[in-house]
Amino acid sequence: MAGKKVLIIYAHQEPRSFNGCLKKVAVETLSKQGCSVTVSDLYAMDFEPRATRNDITGPLSNPEVFSYGVEAYEACKKQSLTSDIVDEQKKVQEADLVIFQFPLYWFSVPAILKGWMDRVLCQGFAFDLPGFYDSGFLKGKLALLSITTGSTAEMYTKTGVSGDFKYFLWPLQISFAPETASEEERKQMVASWAQRLETIWKEVPIPCTHSWYFGQ
Amino acid sequence: MAGKKVLIIYAHQEPRSFNGCLKKVAVETLSKQGCSVTVSDLYAMDFEPRATRNDITGPLSNPEVFSYGVEAYEACKKQSLTSDIVDEQKKVQEADLVIFQFPLYWFSVPAILKGWMDRVLCQGFAFDLPGFYDSGFLKGKLALLSITTGSTAEMYTKTGVSGDFKYFLWPLQISFAPETASEEERKQMVASWAQRLETIWKEVPIPCTHSWYFGQ
Repeated sequence: MAGKKVLIIYAHQEPRSFNGCLKKVAVETLSKQGCSVTVSDLYAMDFEPRATRNDITGPLSNPEVFSYGVEAYEACKKQSLTSDIVDEQKKVQEADLVIFQFPLYWFSVPAILKGWMDRVLCQGFAFDLPGFYDSGFLKGKLALLSITTGSTAEMYTKTGVSGDFKYFLWPLQISFAPETASEEERKQMVASWAQRLETIWKEVPIPCTHSWYFGQ
Repeated sequence: MAGKKVLIIYAHQEPRSFNGCLKKVAVETLSKQGCSVTVSDLYAMDFEPRATRNDITGPLSNPEVFSYGVEAYEACKKQSLTSDIVDEQKKVQEADLVIFQFPLYWFSVPAILKGWMDRVLCQGFAFDLPGFYDSGFLKGKLALLSITTGSTAEMYTKTGVSGDFKYFLWPLQISFAPETASEEERKQMVASWAQRLETIWKEVPIPCTHSWYFGQ
């Protein structure tokens, strides 16, 4: 949709991977719609995943006993978070839609992307108490997880070795096992991804009270 | 139980935190039993969470298109994984019980611990195909997740704001909201943790076919 702003958080090491392809298609499809698209290429940025006291540039609120959650919250309010966090927060703030593009690692996001979530979505930026999710600051934005897996779709069914996928992550777009799929199947996956992006703006935010729900 | 080997994967920045306390109690309780206990203090080690080509010390099997899973698997077989991964794999291999001690970040493990899982538990070490989980190489070992949360137990019920906790992680030991608990309640949490460790060797591995099941 023309004028919309999209942020793609992309977590794959290889531009020529299937993930790289899905990212590229997303940029193209959405740009053609007139959206402005920004990509955070986490591996290329060598994004820091560890939540440490280095994330706070000013003095600590309690230098005796370090609590990351408390210090990040205070630093967020005082605008003394480290610049790589602030840069990402600005991108999120401006975005109407945030797409997470990644391969599934151990039933979840790769550590580099988990680090993005841990550090960027801090209290004071993404949510605050007592409202918590109900009055989340990102309410109204769309989020979409586009995932590739190593295992086939059959393995992620109720009776499959890995269990029913629907319990892991939602909302999502899954490209099952592109590495073992045929060229035709891979093209179909890319086409189905592009197709979803064509109508992404008609999707309704999840009917729950959470501002964003990552599901894990 | 005397003679047993325990590995604690500990992911907290502050030794004087509640997590630090639970880690300390675990070391003490298990050592008193005659166990030998090893701790991987991930933040103190500045453990690398990112899965990158730096993890492979030899030549890549496909230098044209980098696939982390493929390259880590090959490097594992050729013994050319980087030393910080190999060190952790040796500790896991020797352990009868692995305890993960961490604060819950966004309904999951902190990124630094996710990175430990992503990088250490590679194909060829933790599992292989076609057996996958059924013939997992860590089968028979015990694993236990000891977690602290920011939210109270009420928030993690079916009708609570965060949903029923049982769907997140299992097996587990949860210390709910130690920061807002009374001193008496905190002591009770520590005691219940020590108590569980007293009888940890009587616990039966989870009745499922997975070698380890992290639940996320």
